[in-house]
Amino acid sequence: MVKGPKIPMAKPFQTFALVGRDTDMRVADSMRTLAGHLVKRGGQVLVDQASTVNFGSTPVTRADPQGFADRADLLIAIGGDGTMLHASRLAVGRKVPLLGVNRGRLGFLTDVSPEDMLERLDDVLAGKYTEDRRSLLEARLNRGGRIAGALTALNDVVVQKWETGRMLDIETWIDGQFVNTHGADGLVVASATGSTAYALSCGGPIVQHRLGAVVLVPISPHTLSDRPIVVSADARIELRLKERVDTRAQVLCDGAVLGELDIGDRLEISASQHHVTLIHPPGYEYFRLLRSKLHWGRGGYDGSAGTTPPAER
Amino acid sequence: MVKGPKIPMAKPFQTFALVGRDTDMRVADSMRTLAGHLVKRGGQVLVDQASTVNFGSTPVTRADPQGFADRADLLIAIGGDGTMLHASRLAVGRKVPLLGVNRGRLGFLTDVSPEDMLERLDDVLAGKYTEDRRSLLEARLNRGGRIAGALTALNDVVVQKWETGRMLDIETWIDGQFVNTHGADGLVVASATGSTAYALSCGGPIVQHRLGAVVLVPISPHTLSDRPIVVSADARIELRLKERVDTRAQVLCDGAVLGELDIGDRLEISASQHHVTLIHPPGYEYFRLLRSKLHWGRGGYDGSAGTTPPAER
Amino acid sequence: MVKGPKIPMAKPFQTFALVGRDTDMRVADSMRTLAGHLVKRGGQVLVDQASTVNFGSTPVTRADPQGFADRADLLIAIGGDGTMLHASRLAVGRKVPLLGVNRGRLGFLTDVSPEDMLERLDDVLAGKYTEDRRSLLEARLNRGGRIAGALTALNDVVVQKWETGRMLDIETWIDGQFVNTHGADGLVVASATGSTAYALSCGGPIVQHRLGAVVLVPISPHTLSDRPIVVSADARIELRLKERVDTRAQVLCDGAVLGELDIGDRLEISASQHHVTLIHPPGYEYFRLLRSKLHWGRGGYDGSAGTTPPAER
Amino acid sequence: MVKGPKIPMAKPFQTFALVGRDTDMRVADSMRTLAGHLVKRGGQVLVDQASTVNFGSTPVTRADPQGFADRADLLIAIGGDGTMLHASRLAVGRKVPLLGVNRGRLGFLTDVSPEDMLERLDDVLAGKYTEDRRSLLEARLNRGGRIAGALTALNDVVVQKWETGRMLDIETWIDGQFVNTHGADGLVVASATGSTAYALSCGGPIVQHRLGAVVLVPISPHTLSDRPIVVSADARIELRLKERVDTRAQVLCDGAVLGELDIGDRLEISASQHHVTLIHPPGYEYFRLLRSKLHWGRGGYDGSAGTTPPAER
Repeated sequence: MVKGPKIPMAKPFQTFALVGRDTDMRVADSMRTLAGHLVKRGGQVLVDQASTVNFGSTPVTRADPQGFADRADLLIAIGGDGTMLHASRLAVGRKVPLLGVNRGRLGFLTDVSPEDMLERLDDVLAGKYTEDRRSLLEARLNRGGRIAGALTALNDVVVQKWETGRMLDIETWIDGQFVNTHGADGLVVASATGSTAYALSCGGPIVQHRLGAVVLVPISPHTLSDRPIVVSADARIELRLKERVDTRAQVLCDGAVLGELDIGDRLEISASQHHVTLIHPPGYEYFRLLRSKLHWGRGGYDGSAGTTPPAER
Repeated sequence: MVKGPKIPMAKPFQTFALVGRDTDMRVADSMRTLAGHLVKRGGQVLVDQASTVNFGSTPVTRADPQGFADRADLLIAIGGDGTMLHASRLAVGRKVPLLGVNRGRLGFLTDVSPEDMLERLDDVLAGKYTEDRRSLLEARLNRGGRIAGALTALNDVVVQKWETGRMLDIETWIDGQFVNTHGADGLVVASATGSTAYALSCGGPIVQHRLGAVVLVPISPHTLSDRPIVVSADARIELRLKERVDTRAQVLCDGAVLGELDIGDRLEISASQHHVTLIHPPGYEYFRLLRSKLHWGRGGYDGSAGTTPPAER
Repeated sequence: MVKGPKIPMAKPFQTFALVGRDTDMRVADSMRTLAGHLVKRGGQVLVDQASTVNFGSTPVTRADPQGFADRADLLIAIGGDGTMLHASRLAVGRKVPLLGVNRGRLGFLTDVSPEDMLERLDDVLAGKYTEDRRSLLEARLNRGGRIAGALTALNDVVVQKWETGRMLDIETWIDGQFVNTHGADGLVVASATGSTAYALSCGGPIVQHRLGAVVLVPISPHTLSDRPIVVSADARIELRLKERVDTRAQVLCDGAVLGELDIGDRLEISASQHHVTLIHPPGYEYFRLLRSKLHWGRGGYDGSAGTTPPAER
Repeated sequence: MVKGPKIPMAKPFQTFALVGRDTDMRVADSMRTLAGHLVKRGGQVLVDQASTVNFGSTPVTRADPQGFADRADLLIAIGGDGTMLHASRLAVGRKVPLLGVNRGRLGFLTDVSPEDMLERLDDVLAGKYTEDRRSLLEARLNRGGRIAGALTALNDVVVQKWETGRMLDIETWIDGQFVNTHGADGLVVASATGSTAYALSCGGPIVQHRLGAVVLVPISPHTLSDRPIVVSADARIELRLKERVDTRAQVLCDGAVLGELDIGDRLEISASQHHVTLIHPPGYEYFRLLRSKLHWGRGGYDGSAGTTPPAER
């Protein structure tokens, strides 16, 4: 939830970890610029030990990203929303917040633009920012009573057909009550944050990020009345695969493979006890971001779809 | 929220009000049968003073329905979901719960069937039932700082084009933040209960009824990315009409006219402080009702849409 | 259908009628500029006798627009697509083609922009243009065996709920075969041209304009499997209203009222024997117009909906 | 297209090939019953040489199904629509028509039910049937100017993400004109016949089967305005894959793998010069089939979605 402007932290941000796919020139450029600025401001800068970016005379500390969350006061993700998902995995279970810098195009999660990232960063260093706490989903693959794997997800847990490309029959339970057998290409279980990602492409609604809710969206469902269902964030969701010919299903958490979902497995999804905290410089507004990303208002009422009643002649 | 089976009430149901459009023969028949049974069980039965149903030798009390909620311990609505909406208006602000009896086809709100209504009623009289508390929306038409009208709604508040049939430009605010200008035929603001009514026809998601949430669904929106938005039940929603040629808009609460929405008016929608309580005999299950109403599972995986991969031959 | 570049007409365009809602300043400005240019090029310019635009020293001929199609060699519509619909009504049954000039924003039908309208017009005068012949629908209201009214439509014939705002039950027949009873707010019967107008907002597909096809799209249908149906342009479509409480329906052709659809009426819709011909200056491309109007490609693959797999970090 | 009842063929049906996945008991039972009946009526019956069905004393001829189309006068497919797709592949380029017998649930293509299949077959043998000629799509995989593979499809050609599960960027051309870059899980190119199969699950319209048209439907498209496009059946469609990280795409024709679509490949799709002919016993009606398969009318106006205006109480 977005809170009001903060009083500068007693212990201000001192150590910064830079995360991003730096084989992208735009990312590498932003990294160099950010590192230079942060060092000049007296900060310590951590970068991936495997990074090939040349930071020149700027003294940066190379380290294993898996340890970033323990050492840094702020994780700065540079890239698209995918980078932010990656960075959020580094931060899970830690207190370190995340700041997202895009590559020139606004992201749902990376809302700081390269053009004014130094000013925005100075705002943040001066304590001018809001904290935006986001819920995570936790997915556990229960195979014969044993947890065969578990992952958290900021955006979504996706069960999808795999290899043979045949439709799946996915059974859903909510809080122990049977919901439906979804004949579909798959099923997306998205957090409020993830409702504007893949779930939206599959026909799901936008879920206000501050609402504690989870949305189940079937992917290309066989039955036309098989619609998205919004449930409470504290719901215990369970998915199972029904036996069919040539059926194979895969489970992804924010795009990372959790494993295959076999007949008999139970995929348990519920709210994680962990959260991640996004840091927004002043001016961040959730609905303005939506308007921009979804091209609302571009074209206004004479916009996309085109009905033009005679009265408009 | 559905709670577990109840211990019989200290003061059991004694007085029953029957509500329904009794010009429908099926409704009149059920009314007679229910009245006879309830009187035999020692209860008092209230019916609309304007009713033309002949209750024969069964002693019923004719009264003004507006007073039903003060006099009855249980309102029994006989008919479709529309009758239940009507009955809920009689009950708003009172403690009297509602029981819904359908006309042979399951309703989202009228879940007791005429075939076994006497057995189900006996269950209820024996204290075997669950209480299902539903949130209400409240809509206030603010005209020049004065509330020109206000109504509650169990299902939805709908702003729709009116008479001239021209598209509307509806501006939405949530908690004081501007959301979007929706070029559309109208906008549905639905409670969780109403999410399976008109909002669903307009492309909205199903909102689990126990989730405190409200969904805003544009009707035939001009911009294709103008998607349903699910917000917190405690959100303060405000709608305004933007000036356009020949634009006229009407506000309906559960289908009842609240008034016209003029340029300059503010339609304020928020959670009502009131609730209504539905009474369900044993066996009620929310998702089973959904499955039945939405024909899920009828046809199973070979059902509606029809993709049949070669593997199935 | 778009044909190749034309050899200059034996009888070139000499007389031009300007059509538009000239209370809009942008329209009036374009009219003045176009009139001046056309007169300078030796043409005769017809304008609505009721127009309040001051054409200064430019000699224009004021006349009744109903006679434009008989007197002019080219109808130039200035405004939005609604103006073009209006102009097309003036041209029905005549040979005069239409050129559409927008007010700064591209229309599906008004594809010439004010910035370069004079150059584009010179192209047209030099015979450099393509002809784009569009089919029309014809709607006849059959009341008790008598045709109570008939209208043509370039975009669509719409049956919609009216006044009481209750859902309609619309029965559809195609070539004498019963199709369905649509419980809905209405039904759109759109030509290929109209498929990108109101029908698109109601969930219909884009129908390539050169395809002889008509699409039936229910408006907010009650049954979720009630999907758009694309039929042959030579199909005989018939709509009837089923009796319901408080049902009232209105028939609109391109937004103009044909009349009320009463119980017992038959609304017959089929291809009109007439066509209208749009004139496009060089450079017109149907799919490029679609891409622009529907914001395809704006945002590219990182665009609207937002799924960003980890690989993109 | 459905034509009127036929005069008995000069050369009546004599040789019948039975096709189906006979490991399904229901299929094996129907096969036995059909074989017995046809032999009793003086016909010759061909069955798959690999079939394990025991035909008892009924003399059947075991042969390679690849040769069925050359030897049989009628192919009888027993099973779901997938079996019919399989049988249609055997018949492509030959004159032999197809009759579809379902397993108890109506199929879009298998419209004869096991309960009355013998009566319906007798109708057909007596010349009482309609022929229903269906167009086929042809897909050619053009790799560096060489056709690396080609298949026909009765329902659809599908390009879908493969293995890595990353979104695809699919570029589409129609008749040489660029249409769009679809960021999506894939793209369905469906015939009219296939419009009620997978394409419908992906949001496509129903295309009347007698209409010569093809529909392009993006699968879970990234951009919300990326809508289905209906084009002429004689359109030349071309699809290419744009380079992205980890992108892999597969091409399926009626579910059979044509191959991978690599960067640089051109997938050319157009109307096949071949058709298949379905045989329908008396009583077949396209729209009645749709109503049944899509559950239209089940529930009528009080059906799926549930809006119940106050007037209905």
